[in-house]
Amino acid sequence: MTASLESLESRFADIKALQAAIAMMEWDQQTYMPRGGSPARASHLGSLSRIAHEMFVSEEIGALLGRAKSEVDPESEEGALVRVAQREYDLATKVPAELVSRKVQLAAEGHEVWMAARANNDFERFRPYLEQMFEIARQEATYLGYRDHIYDALFDQYEEGAKAADATRLFETLKAPLVELVRQIAESQNDPDDSFLTGEWPESKQREFTEFLVKEIGFDMNRGRQDVAPHPFCTGWSVGDIRLTTRFKPYLASSIFASLHEAGHGMYEQGSPAAWDLKFPMLVGGVSLGVHESQSRLWENIVGRSRPFWKRHLPELARRFPEFSEVPLDTFYRAVNKVQPSLIRVEADEVTYNLHILVRFELECDLLTGDLKAKDLPAAWNAKYKEYLGIEPETDSDGCLQDVHWSSGLIGYFPTYSMGNLLSYQIWNALRKDLGDTDALIERGEFRPILSWLQDNIYRHGKRYQPQDLIERATGRPMEANDYLTGIRAKYTELYGL
Amino acid sequence: MTASLESLESRFADIKALQAAIAMMEWDQQTYMPRGGSPARASHLGSLSRIAHEMFVSEEIGALLGRAKSEVDPESEEGALVRVAQREYDLATKVPAELVSRKVQLAAEGHEVWMAARANNDFERFRPYLEQMFEIARQEATYLGYRDHIYDALFDQYEEGAKAADATRLFETLKAPLVELVRQIAESQNDPDDSFLTGEWPESKQREFTEFLVKEIGFDMNRGRQDVAPHPFCTGWSVGDIRLTTRFKPYLASSIFASLHEAGHGMYEQGSPAAWDLKFPMLVGGVSLGVHESQSRLWENIVGRSRPFWKRHLPELARRFPEFSEVPLDTFYRAVNKVQPSLIRVEADEVTYNLHILVRFELECDLLTGDLKAKDLPAAWNAKYKEYLGIEPETDSDGCLQDVHWSSGLIGYFPTYSMGNLLSYQIWNALRKDLGDTDALIERGEFRPILSWLQDNIYRHGKRYQPQDLIERATGRPMEANDYLTGIRAKYTELYGL
Repeated sequence: MTASLESLESRFADIKALQAAIAMMEWDQQTYMPRGGSPARASHLGSLSRIAHEMFVSEEIGALLGRAKSEVDPESEEGALVRVAQREYDLATKVPAELVSRKVQLAAEGHEVWMAARANNDFERFRPYLEQMFEIARQEATYLGYRDHIYDALFDQYEEGAKAADATRLFETLKAPLVELVRQIAESQNDPDDSFLTGEWPESKQREFTEFLVKEIGFDMNRGRQDVAPHPFCTGWSVGDIRLTTRFKPYLASSIFASLHEAGHGMYEQGSPAAWDLKFPMLVGGVSLGVHESQSRLWENIVGRSRPFWKRHLPELARRFPEFSEVPLDTFYRAVNKVQPSLIRVEADEVTYNLHILVRFELECDLLTGDLKAKDLPAAWNAKYKEYLGIEPETDSDGCLQDVHWSSGLIGYFPTYSMGNLLSYQIWNALRKDLGDTDALIERGEFRPILSWLQDNIYRHGKRYQPQDLIERATGRPMEANDYLTGIRAKYTELYGL
Repeated sequence: MTASLESLESRFADIKALQAAIAMMEWDQQTYMPRGGSPARASHLGSLSRIAHEMFVSEEIGALLGRAKSEVDPESEEGALVRVAQREYDLATKVPAELVSRKVQLAAEGHEVWMAARANNDFERFRPYLEQMFEIARQEATYLGYRDHIYDALFDQYEEGAKAADATRLFETLKAPLVELVRQIAESQNDPDDSFLTGEWPESKQREFTEFLVKEIGFDMNRGRQDVAPHPFCTGWSVGDIRLTTRFKPYLASSIFASLHEAGHGMYEQGSPAAWDLKFPMLVGGVSLGVHESQSRLWENIVGRSRPFWKRHLPELARRFPEFSEVPLDTFYRAVNKVQPSLIRVEADEVTYNLHILVRFELECDLLTGDLKAKDLPAAWNAKYKEYLGIEPETDSDGCLQDVHWSSGLIGYFPTYSMGNLLSYQIWNALRKDLGDTDALIERGEFRPILSWLQDNIYRHGKRYQPQDLIERATGRPMEANDYLTGIRAKYTELYGL
């Protein structure tokens, strides 16, 4: 190893330690922190982010990267490290440390206010934080630079090379067929009954069953755990320590599919080579949000909402919740795939999901450009729900206050969910070509070959290849909408007898 | 505020953020971390400690402290800040950063190995870590400097100004009266029956009852919480976020008194002025380990093991654990105060407790000087238990592997427990002089006046005064052994009908 690479690695180890601390404080904030911890937490997060940022954007690291670039084989792991670090360095050096620190501190405070605002349906309480966060985002975008649309600068942070115009085109491709499918479904008069999923389900039993399921599909509890948070998420600070969260509602499908979704993220994170944890922490984890989301959706929807999955697991569910002993497999399968325009994104079905994203994508574009003022957000939100989904929230808690993202400063993030939906089907088709009868595997509870294929083709590469490269390597072609549209059309035509 | 003070405060805020991250990672390591998180955690802790250490020991902070000293009123809060920071600075600059980092990393790894070694009664597995830790302690002591005994250098870190010779004198004062009292108790033939405390107590009910108790006495759950750890401890990262831990055993008194003990620590930590959290984080918390321990012992033993405490709470216990409905108050009171030479320090009664400490104090002195080799520790431990307590452990898990301290590098720490025992009675007597009939208060569940007295006289001062100053302010005199000896002699003479 060259001297510059060695220097970089020891500096990255320190930065990784700071990032681990930040991630843990954020995890704790959403799982276990008592209310009184909030002011100091915001200050600690502000300090740690600033320290990490200053360490990373030092001229010395810039110089070391410049030297290392000419010394490494670009095809090697070291070469990937230098490339990824250089991109991060470029992104980070453009934004002043002071702005980064202000954003993190605002996010910590804003998160608390958002929680209270959502609990009390009090948008006005949250509004000043939302305004400040979008103002910071505008400044960020200016520092990062963009050619076509202010949104591009932010979007690229989460999905390398992605642009607002691409997302717009993507949604234009999806919109008509989705609206048509939703229309057919609505007219089918063949609505699944999911009333038996509503009830008072004891939290401890939900916890046990969801832990059972995520272990079944391959999430390694020796290298992770599941806790409870108001908005489920997955985080982690090493390949050996990945944390899932879920939540408990009086609708049993909520915790089950939240857990399977987060476990999909979690298995991707657990799949990076263990040796990279200390050696190349910058290469560990998912390559982009879109690819990450493809894995959560794959395990949640394609595996978790399949008929063979419940042929296997309905008896176990009924053993733990005797209320389900009399529910036929087909009734259960149809219930967890019910298509229904609803208000809450995280509980949306896979047909309407992308319409929820479209609402958010358009609104955050308008908030960024100033075409929409924060004070007008609730009305604009409700109007778009009416237009795309035919329904309107009665409270802002069920409307524009439902998502954690904007309170945390995640602007330019939402479209990656839709990219995940498309990629999940495209990757699944490639996997099926190699593995054959996946239904039979799932029905026998043999998730190992599925996980191994994903591990080999995606997870083990971490951030080594660029997103588009990885997709082409894994599926033989660039991202397309076709697999998704064909997949859900087939599934729901059969399910609804269209 | 002067410019040097302002500079110091912003630097201390960053260092506090790093210390908060370290404390949280250590807390997580003992409460929630999956096994696989261990190697990266050790590396992250090593990095963060080194960064914090380097920030603190910079020449710039040395110069700022020098300037600030001449600018502040030594009687003011700012004056206290400069004095405390200067002491910490002197302690820290004497030890090289590399040694500090090595110690933290060894502690993280050693803790895991210690847990496994204790679980499997495998001292040899832990021995290399113990040897390295004492070797590091010897080097630390050399860097810190001492006049009389190598132990003094380490002892002073936990208890400002304390010396091995003082501890030796303390134990000499205590030893004979304690042995005599233990002898009288053994000969009394009036042994309390505590068999009804043994049973299979559901963890969830123990969790609920101990949370009820710590809230009753005044631990604020809006600014803290209780979790579960193999060895109970109290930690925190701000006045508004203090974490207790407890543990569940088939002996119900174990979790109850562990929780009351840690809540005593926790209320002391919660008692620093909230404004100091962001302004003077270096003044927040307990002033020394001895004074800290006086509060955990006061709430655990003097309040928690008193007859009026259980006159108040036995009915509530019996409501939650119907097995206790038929247990008379006096039987319960005597059971939780049973004196019995036992093997496990954290479960020792308040009469024999100091003998457990004596064993450890003598052994760590000998390990430090080299008079004892690590390989001979189990035999030496067992011999001293035989000599002082008349019993001998059958396994090292119940012997020299029982404590977390040495695995974490806490050497020179144990005697502060005994200082806490003495101070708890001395402080309680001062409190009683002001409040009058404390038994009546406890019996009525009126813990507020007790907590307020402690808050006014001790907790709110944080680290503002030196330990001896604080004790003299609160009790009117320096630390003495008399209150403790008189107190336990009276209590156990009555309890055992001597």
